[in-house]
Amino acid sequence: MQNIKVGLLGFGTIGTGVVRVFQQNHDLLANRLGASLELVRIADLDTTTDRGVKLAPGLLTDDARALLNDPEVQIVIELIGGYEPARTFVLEAIRNGKHIVTANKALLAMHGEEIFSAAEEAGVSVMFEAAVAGGVPVISAIKENLGANNYSALYGILNGTCNYILTEMDEKGKDFSDVLAEAQKQGYAEADPTFDVEGIDTAHKLALLLSLCFGTKVDFNDIYTEGISKVTAIDIEYARDFGYKLKLLAIGKRDGDKIEARVHPTMIPEDYPLAAINGVFNTVRLVGDFSGPVMLSGYGAGMDATASAVMGDVLSVARDLQTDCSARMPALGCPQSQLANYTIKPMEQVVTPYYLRFNVKDHPGVLASIAGILGKHEISIESMVQPHRHEAEAVPIVFMTHVAEERNVIAALAEINEMDVIQEETLLIRIEDHLE
Amino acid sequence: MQNIKVGLLGFGTIGTGVVRVFQQNHDLLANRLGASLELVRIADLDTTTDRGVKLAPGLLTDDARALLNDPEVQIVIELIGGYEPARTFVLEAIRNGKHIVTANKALLAMHGEEIFSAAEEAGVSVMFEAAVAGGVPVISAIKENLGANNYSALYGILNGTCNYILTEMDEKGKDFSDVLAEAQKQGYAEADPTFDVEGIDTAHKLALLLSLCFGTKVDFNDIYTEGISKVTAIDIEYARDFGYKLKLLAIGKRDGDKIEARVHPTMIPEDYPLAAINGVFNTVRLVGDFSGPVMLSGYGAGMDATASAVMGDVLSVARDLQTDCSARMPALGCPQSQLANYTIKPMEQVVTPYYLRFNVKDHPGVLASIAGILGKHEISIESMVQPHRHEAEAVPIVFMTHVAEERNVIAALAEINEMDVIQEETLLIRIEDHLE
Repeated sequence: MQNIKVGLLGFGTIGTGVVRVFQQNHDLLANRLGASLELVRIADLDTTTDRGVKLAPGLLTDDARALLNDPEVQIVIELIGGYEPARTFVLEAIRNGKHIVTANKALLAMHGEEIFSAAEEAGVSVMFEAAVAGGVPVISAIKENLGANNYSALYGILNGTCNYILTEMDEKGKDFSDVLAEAQKQGYAEADPTFDVEGIDTAHKLALLLSLCFGTKVDFNDIYTEGISKVTAIDIEYARDFGYKLKLLAIGKRDGDKIEARVHPTMIPEDYPLAAINGVFNTVRLVGDFSGPVMLSGYGAGMDATASAVMGDVLSVARDLQTDCSARMPALGCPQSQLANYTIKPMEQVVTPYYLRFNVKDHPGVLASIAGILGKHEISIESMVQPHRHEAEAVPIVFMTHVAEERNVIAALAEINEMDVIQEETLLIRIEDHLE
Repeated sequence: MQNIKVGLLGFGTIGTGVVRVFQQNHDLLANRLGASLELVRIADLDTTTDRGVKLAPGLLTDDARALLNDPEVQIVIELIGGYEPARTFVLEAIRNGKHIVTANKALLAMHGEEIFSAAEEAGVSVMFEAAVAGGVPVISAIKENLGANNYSALYGILNGTCNYILTEMDEKGKDFSDVLAEAQKQGYAEADPTFDVEGIDTAHKLALLLSLCFGTKVDFNDIYTEGISKVTAIDIEYARDFGYKLKLLAIGKRDGDKIEARVHPTMIPEDYPLAAINGVFNTVRLVGDFSGPVMLSGYGAGMDATASAVMGDVLSVARDLQTDCSARMPALGCPQSQLANYTIKPMEQVVTPYYLRFNVKDHPGVLASIAGILGKHEISIESMVQPHRHEAEAVPIVFMTHVAEERNVIAALAEINEMDVIQEETLLIRIEDHLE
């Protein structure tokens, strides 16, 4: 029986999950592969903490190079996270002819081109199923099974922390900051939650999905990224009244040689399957010209689900090694040379319906003035609600618009925000009511 | 650029879809593969019908052997359907060293072992993503991405016709036979709907999923198979009253070296994601020990979605050919020699809650008698409803039971059906209220 040897860089939570898969499902993996899969080395600076798994003596080292230069190791699992030293180690492993399996979306969103090109040159694979939507096999679905499709759009709920917070706000009517504090206490949110709640993590994942679906390079910095920290329980309540759910959505659409790429709080009709994805679950909806919409859902994070995705990639590379085919699958599903250079459509050209919540001193005529300015900017109103009338006190007025161009909305809001009666900055939430 | 050559056996609806993918996405496929993918021959007995696609002269032949013996053809797509001549042709293609892509669940459920073993011997691949859940990439998810998991259970809505009928019955309160007649008129159901509505098609698909998930041979004939033709609009209404939806579910569970394998109308809690899958959509819920539950949904049938799955397999084999790895992925995800021989648990040992609808002449004491017999057989009642009281007329009495062993339920019903007051055979519907 062939013996395939694996090294693990980074022995944190996910790394521990990976070790558990190797141990718990050792025989099952050998049975499926018809080959033995062995974890021969683990490198982490912390060699003393008890992670609750038993390791053979000598398996764990604090010297990453001992692993990177070990000629026995055929597959390197990178679970260090972040940009450095992950980038340096991954490039070094590639130069040493080792295949890479990683869960590091930040690294690939920022340095993907460098890493994928190096891998192509060295004839090794870079697999990263675990980088997007945790245990949900979305990347290989895009590259392989749905790979004969011309994709027109993708939609994703890609950050479990945000989805958990929005679900709690929705179900319990609580405000963002309260739910965040609780989520931090329960371990669903980091001490510094910026990456998650400001949409950056979601944008990293969207960058990868865009490249995969549309076969293009993507400049991460061009992705419009807005988090959920400005959303209030009131907005979620209004959304419900209008028949919508509020989700942090990653949206990618193809429009000729331009792509739409945006991450922001989004209202979607409450009877859409995406609207039913609650708590820490992740979902991706892919739209192909032949497949139609395909939805994939499951745990988007966590030790076990992420380890499942990592080990799926390890199995895949192991099958390549067994059958002597090197670098069978390009990292982005097509050779680097074939990647297009689509540009991301500027946000001001995006066209959607909008939810606009104005906070005004409620004088007679205010509503007419706001409506007048919206009309002047070619924004037509679908419905309006002004729930509580208390003269002289700040009250919310909510407009749901028909589709409008974002540049017009921005211009109208600039004008409206200048009005004396406006008490605080207007909140704008985009609506997607015709998901492909 | 390498040129990979494909032959198509069977030029019906799905075959036409496949030709359309080849034509419409020709450049895209070449771009992704870095190789050209050419459809070099189509064989079908009917060479005259206009399928609405333009073919190069000489591409279409009525001689399957001309394709099977063409040394140029590397991949054979089998879309004839049924057992023969599909089986003979597939085995012949395998002997000729050609890789197989097929959508033929009936063939594989009945003759899978023969075909997979022949392929293994010849060193070729047999791919069949399109055989289960149409365009939804469930087979490769099981074999590849989630392949490091020990699966404990799978649940599937696998037949679009049945799900369409049940959805219409639910939404419009119509009875089975009326909806079926309409579905036939609209092309959602075959003229002879037996395979679909009696659950046989679903059982074929379950047989394949069981082999894939649990790594075992499965005797198709041992799968308990019950269709939806006995379900009435009243049962769907009662289900709703109790907080359930009625679905034709394929259920597979592992219990040591036994597996549960059953297809039958099933009540599931209405707030479960599976309950929200309506119309012709298909869904599979896979439960792995590390991944947790993963749900995959999309179109389960139709020309385009099925062609998408077929072409995904073609792409996969093309990548193998490009990198010179033959038969990289065993048909069932592990070598044939590693397959276990788990037996299917006899239905009488299955333990679930039950919905029991009795039709009785409503005399005082009937309810007590029925409840007494149930109690004698160790079946405890969770709730009961007897909606319309009309003395001397047949009325339904519905019991929802706690979990009970099916042998006890069968024994109790045999006894109850002997009672004079019973007007027609009692309807039993199984409940799944703790989906893993």
